[in-house]
Amino acid sequence: MTLLQETLKRIVPTEKQWEIKAQNHLDDLTKPLGSLGVLEDIARKVISIYEGNSPSLQKKVVFTFAADHGITAEGVSAYPKAVTAQMVLNFLRGGAAINVLARHVGSDVVVVDAGVDYEFQGIEGLVHRKVVRGTRNFLEVPAMSEQEAILSIELGIELGDAYCKRGYRLFGTGDMGIGNTTPSSAITAAITGSPVSTVTGRGTGIDDLALLNKVKVIERALSLHRPDPTNAIDVLSKVGGAEIGAIAGLILAVAANRQVVLIDGFISTAGAIIAYTLKPEVKDYMFASHMSVEGGHAIALSHLGLRPILDLNMRLGEGTGAALAMPIVEAALKIYCEMATFSGAGVSKRL
Amino acid sequence: MTLLQETLKRIVPTEKQWEIKAQNHLDDLTKPLGSLGVLEDIARKVISIYEGNSPSLQKKVVFTFAADHGITAEGVSAYPKAVTAQMVLNFLRGGAAINVLARHVGSDVVVVDAGVDYEFQGIEGLVHRKVVRGTRNFLEVPAMSEQEAILSIELGIELGDAYCKRGYRLFGTGDMGIGNTTPSSAITAAITGSPVSTVTGRGTGIDDLALLNKVKVIERALSLHRPDPTNAIDVLSKVGGAEIGAIAGLILAVAANRQVVLIDGFISTAGAIIAYTLKPEVKDYMFASHMSVEGGHAIALSHLGLRPILDLNMRLGEGTGAALAMPIVEAALKIYCEMATFSGAGVSKRL
Repeated sequence: MTLLQETLKRIVPTEKQWEIKAQNHLDDLTKPLGSLGVLEDIARKVISIYEGNSPSLQKKVVFTFAADHGITAEGVSAYPKAVTAQMVLNFLRGGAAINVLARHVGSDVVVVDAGVDYEFQGIEGLVHRKVVRGTRNFLEVPAMSEQEAILSIELGIELGDAYCKRGYRLFGTGDMGIGNTTPSSAITAAITGSPVSTVTGRGTGIDDLALLNKVKVIERALSLHRPDPTNAIDVLSKVGGAEIGAIAGLILAVAANRQVVLIDGFISTAGAIIAYTLKPEVKDYMFASHMSVEGGHAIALSHLGLRPILDLNMRLGEGTGAALAMPIVEAALKIYCEMATFSGAGVSKRL
Repeated sequence: MTLLQETLKRIVPTEKQWEIKAQNHLDDLTKPLGSLGVLEDIARKVISIYEGNSPSLQKKVVFTFAADHGITAEGVSAYPKAVTAQMVLNFLRGGAAINVLARHVGSDVVVVDAGVDYEFQGIEGLVHRKVVRGTRNFLEVPAMSEQEAILSIELGIELGDAYCKRGYRLFGTGDMGIGNTTPSSAITAAITGSPVSTVTGRGTGIDDLALLNKVKVIERALSLHRPDPTNAIDVLSKVGGAEIGAIAGLILAVAANRQVVLIDGFISTAGAIIAYTLKPEVKDYMFASHMSVEGGHAIALSHLGLRPILDLNMRLGEGTGAALAMPIVEAALKIYCEMATFSGAGVSKRL
């Protein structure tokens, strides 16, 4: 059995009984019933993942997977492709938004070269795991071979497994890849069946004309390759990206190890859709960290049935939304563990 | 001049030039223009408050003002009035939601007896500043005298001034008072002119019949007292509460001292409306931390023109929303201060 097959087999749904037990405890805490809203929803889900236990979520890590995209040749991005590698170097120096936010919330950041079209040889602090040197232009040929697509997923699985073994409990997904809203829109359209125009947005900030072109490029690619919406590997290889595959793999590994994963924005959610298509039970381990400005994100989240924790008009990626939502997930678990009960605190219940 | 008059005089609007300078700097950071959304909005506003400077916001405090309400005699709450005092004791032992969340975000909590109908004599850790021993039932008589209303505001001002002097920069408002969504709805209806039924909700969880009664109680009180919507003291004394006055005073003091204040939920926003009616310029120093489930909150925030940072279906009060939003405000300022610039990091700008 391959690592991917083995991992899929290890993923099991959480049991309903833990949710019920968790809500019973939440209802005994000194607050009106249900008054902590989403914090209570989060606590129930986390407690179910840990089968009634409530370990500290202090060991946190955001994985920022970087890769390039051949589709940038079609003018789908506002930034030159070279920015992917430049931003990787910026991550390693600690100057990017994800570095600032991860430091702020006490999370580590692991930067992974999953497929950047640049030679980082000898550069320290980077996880060198290039699956491709940029994907191919999927307007002409499949972005990756099936083997490459599987390798990109297994890269995420290996890193996820390793960090779970090291005691990390709260994982965030992240991405860097100029042009990667295009494969994300293509994946979302292919798997959800939504029209391309509804799941395609301005990414880093293209104008009206470039947006029209981006929609056409994706439509043409989908009618050229006709990816099978029930076959995630087929979709990922034909119109995906290496960082998106790695994100899917990370999510699968976290679920297989029964830990918690926060999905960042639109690109990460495309990875989450790949993971979910491979094994719907991963959903029990995932949280949507925020609602991106990118229009396709709401459609992708609704396919997963996830409600985003934050809605701050962000559209940066890197894992910034995941980092920012981490303290909220931790807060939810602390509410569960640290609050007094009505009887313990001598507080009267409702009339 | 009274303390209130003096404080109102000290509040000046922030200058537009700082917002522009701040946005120029934000646009030079290594991210697509505007891609951090609300974090950028927050950073601009904070930088304007500090006139271009960016001090650490590490010294944080949530004030939880507690008081009782004579209007509970009319059956407007799902909990017995005794819970106000019981929860104050819970706060002092550290077992309530606000204690857990404030610890989590590194904020102090100051618990103030602004008007609880209970004798806390000799109890340590509580700020003893009772203005009234519970308000009077405003279905029959004004809740407070004008003098008591002013004293409640000045209590908030004095504490705000004292903590600003001690170097606190990030303030959160909070409340505890069984029955206090009723005065909050009454204040919101009186000042915004919205129908009582649209600004009145279930509070801690009353049923349909009790909700109908609550609406009628507020409508009758407003037609009995006819508070002047342009006179905040008149509104506060006739249908308000001591903790709401204290929250208004805290907001005024923070603005007068040019620091940052996070408004909690519906009750705190009623206090913010009082402060705003006294001096609209306070708005430049206020952030709305979250959107409460309580229906009147959206109307109150729209009167202030504030967009809530979080939307987590919460309706607990105490300052829980303010505490939870603190790390987001801090994150916004760190983004501003710590991120690399395009030129500094050698990252290409857009095509």
